[in-house]
Amino acid sequence: MAGRIIHPPVHVATSLRCVANQLRKLLPDVQVIDIELNEGSLSQTSREQINADAEILLADGVPVVTAIMQEENKLRWVQSTWAGVEKIIKRLNPEKPLPSFVLTRSGGASFGKIMADYVMGYIIAHERHLFDMKEDQSKRTWVGSSRREFRPISGLSIGILGIGDIGKEVARCCKSMGMTVWGMVTRQPPEDRKCDAIDFYRTTGDLPEILTNCDHVCNILPSTSSTAGLLSAESFFINIGRGDVTTEADIVEAISSEWISGAALDVFESEPLPESSKLWALPNVHITPHISGSCITELCAEDFAKNYHRYVNKEPLKCVFRWGNLY
Amino acid sequence: MAGRIIHPPVHVATSLRCVANQLRKLLPDVQVIDIELNEGSLSQTSREQINADAEILLADGVPVVTAIMQEENKLRWVQSTWAGVEKIIKRLNPEKPLPSFVLTRSGGASFGKIMADYVMGYIIAHERHLFDMKEDQSKRTWVGSSRREFRPISGLSIGILGIGDIGKEVARCCKSMGMTVWGMVTRQPPEDRKCDAIDFYRTTGDLPEILTNCDHVCNILPSTSSTAGLLSAESFFINIGRGDVTTEADIVEAISSEWISGAALDVFESEPLPESSKLWALPNVHITPHISGSCITELCAEDFAKNYHRYVNKEPLKCVFRWGNLY
Repeated sequence: MAGRIIHPPVHVATSLRCVANQLRKLLPDVQVIDIELNEGSLSQTSREQINADAEILLADGVPVVTAIMQEENKLRWVQSTWAGVEKIIKRLNPEKPLPSFVLTRSGGASFGKIMADYVMGYIIAHERHLFDMKEDQSKRTWVGSSRREFRPISGLSIGILGIGDIGKEVARCCKSMGMTVWGMVTRQPPEDRKCDAIDFYRTTGDLPEILTNCDHVCNILPSTSSTAGLLSAESFFINIGRGDVTTEADIVEAISSEWISGAALDVFESEPLPESSKLWALPNVHITPHISGSCITELCAEDFAKNYHRYVNKEPLKCVFRWGNLY
Repeated sequence: MAGRIIHPPVHVATSLRCVANQLRKLLPDVQVIDIELNEGSLSQTSREQINADAEILLADGVPVVTAIMQEENKLRWVQSTWAGVEKIIKRLNPEKPLPSFVLTRSGGASFGKIMADYVMGYIIAHERHLFDMKEDQSKRTWVGSSRREFRPISGLSIGILGIGDIGKEVARCCKSMGMTVWGMVTRQPPEDRKCDAIDFYRTTGDLPEILTNCDHVCNILPSTSSTAGLLSAESFFINIGRGDVTTEADIVEAISSEWISGAALDVFESEPLPESSKLWALPNVHITPHISGSCITELCAEDFAKNYHRYVNKEPLKCVFRWGNLY
């Protein structure tokens, strides 16, 4: 007899609106239990409810997952609604044993698509003078000729630093707009695992070659020590990775010295970016409040539902964080 | 004996920088003669030079083509660097015979790509709050949550009004970003001439259906009398066609009444847009100075070179304006 598929219930604890409802649509056979949050955090009752009942949990990384990850419970699988896990990991109590559940993160292709939208938006905004024209508009001036000097997006090249799920989506988006795509990886993947949308694979040591050849550079690396000189090319720099890839002082210097033509920055050493930061007022620098890859209800629910199907079918889950990597 | 291909010389008279040089690269066997312009216009000497010598001319629509189009000369083919011909046609002197040369315009795919970049830029800028975030930045405020509420581009739909060379490029670009594409045409094309990037072909009478179904509406029609109600849907309206598709008053009303969520306007009833126009200060309306499809040296030269090969090979030229259509 073929094994009957069991559909264990799912507990949902997130500030993202309507995720539970969305899940009920995507997983009609599954009981979806909504856990109430109090200003984004777990109340004592909610916490006890999770610890007592939950096997599967979809929850915000901080503060929900961090609140229960080292408590006694029956959790077997927790998916965070966030794309990153660093902030969760940082809150692990070293005195306590590591969680025994499998931790997955949202993201992958759906997250990548949204981040790719952001990247393409700022590439076009920069090349086509969108912010300058907004400024012209506020002065009611019709600036013809200089706004007509621009490069077709299809003639541009981009270097993408970090080719994971997100980097591949950014590559696909740029390729579909006709750009030439360079991808920087830690080590060359085998031919059959290369992404079609990447014209040139290079490794970390080739960063100078990438910078020389690319009009735009997009950093998606979570953090890296190999990015010295990242800001010394005439490119437009887009940072959607982590804020510590460059220091604020480096960016101020790179812009002032005209090493780079501009930047779109979504991540910062310290967030929210302090009001006193020099970055706010730099010319051609666009500051956004860590929204490039924001989790969206529909996609968050979709990502979870796909992993849920894998879970019940006993297939390997996607976007698993390996606790073992901590050592 | 196979016919030997003759490469007649090309006269170039445009304010666009370096087009002649670019042509020399693309057509190394061809003599390219640069005609000097005086603040964009033909001097008497230049005019006489064209009339005396030129068989093939690549020139700005106004004032160059219009200056010589009804004079006595040996011109057999004139390509305008402009995408539109209306302004040329308007200057025809009805007392004189029509030009005997073939008139072609720049454009087609290369022009369309640039306009598609513009359209995609404003779609993303609108959906991802790019201008709002620029405003936040100017106030040094970190506005998190509301900037995180957005729709993935891949989940959106667009209605493109006018499916010529440009409309097809806009369709391809939107499709490649994952959008659902509706195309409005005068009459349904045969199946084998349909554009792959268009999910639903509709005719002019179906405009209400398009508006109901589309998040964005992009007008590329040169001019139309069938667009009543164009602004009565909750869509974002992008106008890169002609300014007389809607009146200024209609747009003011549509925004004030929240019939549309915003607009990117590149073309106007009167250009430059008068300083007194109410459009300048409307919320969520982005004014650009007719730059969506600006002619760019590289693409202008490429378009011409492709047509030149057709000319010497006695193949039909692309983008021919039919003088006969005037009657």
